Amino acid sequence: MDSGSRNLKPIFEPRSLAVIGASNNPAKWGCIILANIISYGFKGKIYPVNPNEEKILGIRAYPNIVSVNDEVDLAVIARPAEAVLQHIEECVEAGVKAAIAIAGGFRETGEKGEAFEGVCVRRAREGGLLLVGPNTMGVYSASVDLCALMPPVFPRKGEVALISQSGNIGTNLLGFGSTVGIGFDKFVSSGNEADIECYEYLDYFGSDPNVKVILLYLEGVRSGRKFMRVAEEVSEKKPVIAYKSGRTKAGIRAAKSHSGALFSPNEVVRAVFRQTGITEASTINEMLDLAKSFVNLPPPKGERVGILTWGGGYGVVASDAFEEAGLDVVPLSEDTIQKLNALLPSYWSKGNPVDLVGTFDRSLQPSCLDAIARDPNVDIVVALGFIVGSGAFAGAFGGLLLGKDGRSVVKEWIAKADEESMKYMIELIKKYGKPVVAVTATTDIEVVARATEKGAVVYPTIETAANALSKMVQYFARKNKKGRALLQEKNS
Amino acid sequence: MDSGSRNLKPIFEPRSLAVIGASNNPAKWGCIILANIISYGFKGKIYPVNPNEEKILGIRAYPNIVSVNDEVDLAVIARPAEAVLQHIEECVEAGVKAAIAIAGGFRETGEKGEAFEGVCVRRAREGGLLLVGPNTMGVYSASVDLCALMPPVFPRKGEVALISQSGNIGTNLLGFGSTVGIGFDKFVSSGNEADIECYEYLDYFGSDPNVKVILLYLEGVRSGRKFMRVAEEVSEKKPVIAYKSGRTKAGIRAAKSHSGALFSPNEVVRAVFRQTGITEASTINEMLDLAKSFVNLPPPKGERVGILTWGGGYGVVASDAFEEAGLDVVPLSEDTIQKLNALLPSYWSKGNPVDLVGTFDRSLQPSCLDAIARDPNVDIVVALGFIVGSGAFAGAFGGLLLGKDGRSVVKEWIAKADEESMKYMIELIKKYGKPVVAVTATTDIEVVARATEKGAVVYPTIETAANALSKMVQYFARKNKKGRALLQEKNS
Repeated sequence: MDSGSRNLKPIFEPRSLAVIGASNNPAKWGCIILANIISYGFKGKIYPVNPNEEKILGIRAYPNIVSVNDEVDLAVIARPAEAVLQHIEECVEAGVKAAIAIAGGFRETGEKGEAFEGVCVRRAREGGLLLVGPNTMGVYSASVDLCALMPPVFPRKGEVALISQSGNIGTNLLGFGSTVGIGFDKFVSSGNEADIECYEYLDYFGSDPNVKVILLYLEGVRSGRKFMRVAEEVSEKKPVIAYKSGRTKAGIRAAKSHSGALFSPNEVVRAVFRQTGITEASTINEMLDLAKSFVNLPPPKGERVGILTWGGGYGVVASDAFEEAGLDVVPLSEDTIQKLNALLPSYWSKGNPVDLVGTFDRSLQPSCLDAIARDPNVDIVVALGFIVGSGAFAGAFGGLLLGKDGRSVVKEWIAKADEESMKYMIELIKKYGKPVVAVTATTDIEVVARATEKGAVVYPTIETAANALSKMVQYFARKNKKGRALLQEKNS
Repeated sequence: MDSGSRNLKPIFEPRSLAVIGASNNPAKWGCIILANIISYGFKGKIYPVNPNEEKILGIRAYPNIVSVNDEVDLAVIARPAEAVLQHIEECVEAGVKAAIAIAGGFRETGEKGEAFEGVCVRRAREGGLLLVGPNTMGVYSASVDLCALMPPVFPRKGEVALISQSGNIGTNLLGFGSTVGIGFDKFVSSGNEADIECYEYLDYFGSDPNVKVILLYLEGVRSGRKFMRVAEEVSEKKPVIAYKSGRTKAGIRAAKSHSGALFSPNEVVRAVFRQTGITEASTINEMLDLAKSFVNLPPPKGERVGILTWGGGYGVVASDAFEEAGLDVVPLSEDTIQKLNALLPSYWSKGNPVDLVGTFDRSLQPSCLDAIARDPNVDIVVALGFIVGSGAFAGAFGGLLLGKDGRSVVKEWIAKADEESMKYMIELIKKYGKPVVAVTATTDIEVVARATEKGAVVYPTIETAANALSKMVQYFARKNKKGRALLQEKNS
C-alpha cells in the first residue's frame, strides 16, 4: 500500500456491526437500513443502538455504542448531521474500527458545513476510525452478505466492484445490474469522501481477488496525484471503467451543490484517464455494458470482426457500426468461404457479414458461426439474430396457426432455442479463445439478463456491442503493449 | 403530385386482396402471410390463389388470379422469383391495381437478376400495375387492418409511418414499437424499389392526414433529385426522421448484396438531410425515441431547459447531457425561486436543476414541477425520478417491513403513483403548452410503454431524452425560420 491507502477490511468484511440510530419506525432511515441489512442476511453480529428501545426489528438494542460489550468492526451512523460528531467520539471510545456517516448537511451545504466536516474527520483520524462519507447511501459486500444501503436494492452477487460519488446513481446501477444479470462483489457510495477518498477504495478493490472489474462514477477527485498513481497500478491488473460527470458549466454548477467536489477541467480528466489506462464510459449505463464484456469474455487479440447475420439490413448497420467504432470488418479466409459454400445455398453473400437471410430455420447458424470463429483472420465474432428473444413476437401469432395456446408454444420454442444458442456461444469461446457475442433484435431484457448470468454476452443493440468491444480491444492493446515494454526493459 | 408520384391507395387502402401462392402448409410464406392477414382482421375481401387447393385456411381458393371474378386492388405474390413475371402478367390481365413481390433473387444477386427485375417492372408499368418490391417483407396499414407481413409482427395502431429498405429492420421496428408503446399507421418494406421508389411512399405518407411522423430506414436513394424535392416538401408538413446505413466501406459492401442499392457518399447524404429538413437518427432505435417525442409533445419554443431531480448525481449528469446536446440549462426566474423557497426546506439547492434529494415522499414533486413549467425562462421541462418504475426494486423488500405480500404492495404503490405522475405531466403540457418529459431510473420497459400509450413521454436514459429534445428543437427552429422567411417573402 505504498500509495498511502489504508486497509478497508473493517468496512467490507466486518464480523460485527452496529446501526446507530436504529429504529422500529419504518419512515426512518435507521429502520430501513437495518431492515435491508437483516433481510439480505448479514453473516456477522448486528447491534442496533437507540437509547429509547429495548428491541429493534426483533433484535436486542443498546442505549449507546459504548455499552455494546463486543468488538465492533463497523458502525452505520443513521443520525442527523449535527449528531454525527458525538457518535464519532463514542465510536472512538468504544474502539470501533470504521463508521459510515449517512446524513448529508456537510461540505456540500457551504462553509459552515465544510468546517464541521473537517472537525468530524480530524476526530475520526485521531481515534483511528475509518470514515465512509458523510452524505452516503452506504456500502455493500458480497462475501459477508452485507447490504447496508439506504434504498431497498438487493444486489446480485458477482465480480464487479463499484465506487460511486452519487448514492442514487450507484444504487440504481446495482438495481439495473440485477435486471440485466450483472452481479457485484463490492460497492461503496463514497459521498463527500471527507476521510476515505476514491483512490483508497480503488486501491483496495484493485487488490481484491474477488473483483474482476471496477466501475467508478466520478464527479471530482481531490488527491489527484495519488488517484493517478493508484489508477495506473490497478488498471494494469484489471479494467477500471469510469464515467465522469461535471463536464459542462451547468454540470459543474450542479455538482458543487451535490457532493461538494472540486473539479478539474474536462480535458485534464480525459488526459488522466488516457494516461492511467482507465476506460471511459460515455453514459452511466455504458458502464454496465462494458462490465459485462470484461467479466464474461476472453481478451480479444486484435480488432478484426467476423459477423454472422440473420438479415441483410442488420449486416449493413453492423458493418457501419463496427467500422465507425474503429474495428475492422475483414474479408474471411478462402478456407472459411469454402466451408460456408458447403453449408449455404449457392446465392449466399460470400462476404463478411455472412448473411443467412431471415428464416425461421435456425439449424444452420451454429456450423456457420463455428466456421467464422475458427477463421485465423477473425479476432472477434458477432452473431446477429442468433439470440432471438420472444418480446417482439408477444402480440402476434393469434390462434390461427398454432392452436389456442399457440403464443406460449412459440415463446417456449424461442426460449429453448435461445438457451441452446447461448450454450453454444460459450462453447465456441472455450474452443477458440475469442470473444463471441450476440446482438438480439428484441427489447426483451430478460434474454439479455439470462445470457449474462450464464456467462454469455448478448447486447440489445449493435451500437452498444460495437462500442463495448472497441473499448475492450483498446484496453488490452494498451495492457499488452505495456507488458511487452516491461518485458523488453527486463531483457535489455 | 407534381413530383411524379403515383396514388398508392390500392396498396394501403385496398378493398380486396389476393394472396398468390397461398398455402395450407405452415412452412410456406404463402401460408404465414395469409395467416397474418386473416389474424389481424383485414377489413376487405381476401382471395387465396393456388391451383392445387380448394380451401386455404378456411377460405375458398382460386386456381389463378384471372379466375377471381371480382375487382382486386392488391395482390401479394408469395412465389419464387422465377414465377413472378408470369404472375405480374396475370395480374395485369385480371386488372389488379397493385402487387407486392415478396421473393428475393433479383437485382441484389447480380446482373442476371437485375435484367430480370427490369423486365418485370416494364411489364407491370405497361399494364398499369403498381409494384412493391421485389425482395420485400410486405406492407401494413392501420385504417383497413391490413397486416400483409412475413414475420408474425402485429403492429400497435398509431400515428407513425415507416418506410424501410430492410424488411428485417422495418418489421423489428414495428415489434419494438409495440413493446415501448409506439403505434403505426402505415408501413412498407420497400425492398429493391424496382418500380415504386422511396420518394413516392414519402410523398403519399406526407399527404396522409393520419400520419404525424414519418420514419425512414435508408440504404440508398436512386432518384436523388425527386427524393430531395419530396423530402423538402414533406418536412415542412411533418417531421421526417431517417437512419442512413451504408456509411463505411464495409457497410456499402454489405448493402450491395442486400438491397442492391446505389450509394451516394455519406457526406452527400448528410448534406441532403440538412438541406431538406430531414432529422437524422444516429441509431435505428433512436428513430423510435424521436418518433415518440414528435407524436406526444407540443413544439418547444426554444432550447431553455428546466430540470427537477430526485437526486443530485442525476442532476449533474443531466446538466452535462443537455448542455452537450446543445440545449441550455438556464437560471430560473426570481419568481420561481421564491415559489420553490416556499415549498422546499431552506437548504435546497436554489438553482437549476431543482434537487428534491432522494426520498420516498413524492408529494412535493407536482407543485415543484408546476413552478418550473410556468417559468417564462423555461421552454422545456425535464423531471428526473418523477416516474419511478418498480423494476429495480423487484428483488428487494423482503418480508421484514411489509408482510408476506410486501413486494406486490410496493410494486402496486409505485405503479399507482407513476400513473398519477403521468396524468400530471399531460396536464402540465396542456396548461403551459411546453414539452414536459420524464426520465426514469429503471430498466422497466413497461413503465415507458404505458406512458407513451397515454400520451406522456418517459425516457429510459438522460442521454436519449437530451438527444430527442435537441433534435426536436432543431426541427421546429428550422420550420419556424422557414415559415417566417416565407411570410416575409409574401409581405414584401
